[in-house]
Amino acid sequence: MATSQPNLSVDKNHLKSFEPISVPERLLLGPGPSNAHPDVLKALSLHPIGHLDPFYVDLMSEVQELLRYAWQTSNRLTIPMSGTGSAAMEATIANTVEEADTVLVGVNGYFGNRLVDMAGRYKANVETFEKPWGEAFSLEEIEVALKKYKPSILAMVHAETSTGVCQPMHGIGELCEKYDCLLLLDTVTSLGGVPLFIDKWKVDLAYSCSQKGLSCPPGLGPFTMSKRAEKKLLARKDKVPNWYLDVSLLNQYWGSDRVYHHTAPVNMNFGMRESLRLLAEEGLENAWDRHRRNAEKLWLGLVHLGLDLHVQEELRLPTLTTVRIPEGLDGKAFSLHLLNNYGVEIGGGLGDLAGTVWRIGLMGYNSSDENVDKILNLFETELPRFKGNSACAV
Amino acid sequence: MATSQPNLSVDKNHLKSFEPISVPERLLLGPGPSNAHPDVLKALSLHPIGHLDPFYVDLMSEVQELLRYAWQTSNRLTIPMSGTGSAAMEATIANTVEEADTVLVGVNGYFGNRLVDMAGRYKANVETFEKPWGEAFSLEEIEVALKKYKPSILAMVHAETSTGVCQPMHGIGELCEKYDCLLLLDTVTSLGGVPLFIDKWKVDLAYSCSQKGLSCPPGLGPFTMSKRAEKKLLARKDKVPNWYLDVSLLNQYWGSDRVYHHTAPVNMNFGMRESLRLLAEEGLENAWDRHRRNAEKLWLGLVHLGLDLHVQEELRLPTLTTVRIPEGLDGKAFSLHLLNNYGVEIGGGLGDLAGTVWRIGLMGYNSSDENVDKILNLFETELPRFKGNSACAV
Repeated sequence: MATSQPNLSVDKNHLKSFEPISVPERLLLGPGPSNAHPDVLKALSLHPIGHLDPFYVDLMSEVQELLRYAWQTSNRLTIPMSGTGSAAMEATIANTVEEADTVLVGVNGYFGNRLVDMAGRYKANVETFEKPWGEAFSLEEIEVALKKYKPSILAMVHAETSTGVCQPMHGIGELCEKYDCLLLLDTVTSLGGVPLFIDKWKVDLAYSCSQKGLSCPPGLGPFTMSKRAEKKLLARKDKVPNWYLDVSLLNQYWGSDRVYHHTAPVNMNFGMRESLRLLAEEGLENAWDRHRRNAEKLWLGLVHLGLDLHVQEELRLPTLTTVRIPEGLDGKAFSLHLLNNYGVEIGGGLGDLAGTVWRIGLMGYNSSDENVDKILNLFETELPRFKGNSACAV
Repeated sequence: MATSQPNLSVDKNHLKSFEPISVPERLLLGPGPSNAHPDVLKALSLHPIGHLDPFYVDLMSEVQELLRYAWQTSNRLTIPMSGTGSAAMEATIANTVEEADTVLVGVNGYFGNRLVDMAGRYKANVETFEKPWGEAFSLEEIEVALKKYKPSILAMVHAETSTGVCQPMHGIGELCEKYDCLLLLDTVTSLGGVPLFIDKWKVDLAYSCSQKGLSCPPGLGPFTMSKRAEKKLLARKDKVPNWYLDVSLLNQYWGSDRVYHHTAPVNMNFGMRESLRLLAEEGLENAWDRHRRNAEKLWLGLVHLGLDLHVQEELRLPTLTTVRIPEGLDGKAFSLHLLNNYGVEIGGGLGDLAGTVWRIGLMGYNSSDENVDKILNLFETELPRFKGNSACAV
């Protein structure tokens, strides 16, 4: 029948003849993606193999083990989700939230708001406590909110990519134990670049991305889940309302059963394996020190140029710095100028900080002394051309 | 505070020292992934650029336009989802199904059952009509089911990857118009390899994958949605219950607004752009002819070797052939033998066909005369060693 169907002719409306791909050279010093390590890019271009190939199955275990090291956790359920960081973020919510569960979110930036949006879609009773964008929460503020709302889950952002704030984590896990709730943590801009201790901090659910501290292109979302969170998943009354991100199914593939769930993005996992291997080779402490050293040099240099940093020093993320755009200057025009004339990308503000800050990332492979010099030099030579004269913009 | 937090020491439990990655050479003649085109692999390894970079924004439009050609559709909402084919599958359901909508699924294989599972998670009233695994539905059977269940959505599988059946599509779209329901189609194993006309067939929702007919590694899930389906999305009472796959948000990024949703898997999209460009360069009719020609040669060769094909010829997919495992032969041992000793992967059966068939894929870059000779030659020389003697297995 397939061949005896009426013959239809191919429509050429959308047939376009494009040149083979060529990509401009960019130094990515924005909020991500960051440039990938050359060895990771090489791994990406290896020939794919089957997602049930014994070799691939071994590679999966390697990725899991190295991810446990990077995250400082012994969680069995530590895997890269087959989507970007946002998919891993949604996985933390989708697997654990049941209708009418109270989810309490600390909102001090764009990604706190996204957690609110996501948890609402899973029919949680969502409550929030807030701080201005650029500040962190104190233990007292957290305890007040926990007492008031008695949530099943407290969701916090460790590294707010929209503000450059690093939330101090000491004591939060203990509070969550005291008030009997799970601790869910966004570590998108901290994994690989900032001290991060999933188990010692008693974090129950965390997610991250591949394209920042891990020096891999975007496309995978590391995810981890504690035994306590697993218990909540197992006790669900209904199926997880998201098939693709259902950890109970995924665990049959990543666990010892190796039951087919979906066809794994094998090449992205080749890249992830290399990026994690390189991080292990450098050693976590060394990677964290490198990020801090380069960030401190950047901060000092920016301040010397007369620029204001948006976040007070003790709360600053070494991976992402928010710089206030000087009054009267067209920040967007300046970053376009850097991109178009120097191939250097920096980011603009999001949400409450739109138009008021630039975001400069020094993450993973890109956190180097040389890159700090390059961006400081560009700010020094190019910014004066834009001061009080945004008409000269590109 | 971040630095004044108590100093925790790094745990080296999960610190492993692995060699740089090296992947065995494989000829992937199973149900997917298939080998990727070398130009696609080169594109994958280019340096990432920003997901809002003007160059990347142009590339997104190129991908969309070429995808419209490959799918033969003018749908505005034609995009690769940032996950594998299963994510795109879920996107078709998540965006259009509202609680208590009746979703009717034609089940004649594994992926029909998956649609049932997914639609149930979105609280649909799921109804099914069934055929044995290896058969297709007649128009009469479809009409009887439509009349009986009056669904909002009829979900069918064009190319059943588990059985090798190609569902004849002539007249189904017209039936869906007559019974006022949307037509949702699985084209995972047909896109790029088998005649496929989204608009002329009046398909409202379709999904596919990157790693079969498109010769790209797995990781992206092409998705398309008609104006009629868009209308159903716009008329929803509640938000789409899946943030990552919410097309109303995704369209603000893929549409002219270019509003940030999630960080795109840029390198995978480099690869997708190249794979679609190569398909356009070859021309759809040529690609379809090549797949058919090579499949027919494979079928003839297998029958000459005394093997039975599971699907009657007029329903056979040119991209995927199911071969019955001869009685008394250990099919799994034979495929492991091919993998371990010849680096050639073929698939086993799934679900109802587990243990009874092999699945041989000739898809995209791998659909070549040379590969047909290679696999026929292996069956001819190696299979006799396994007949009536599964103990000689590996």
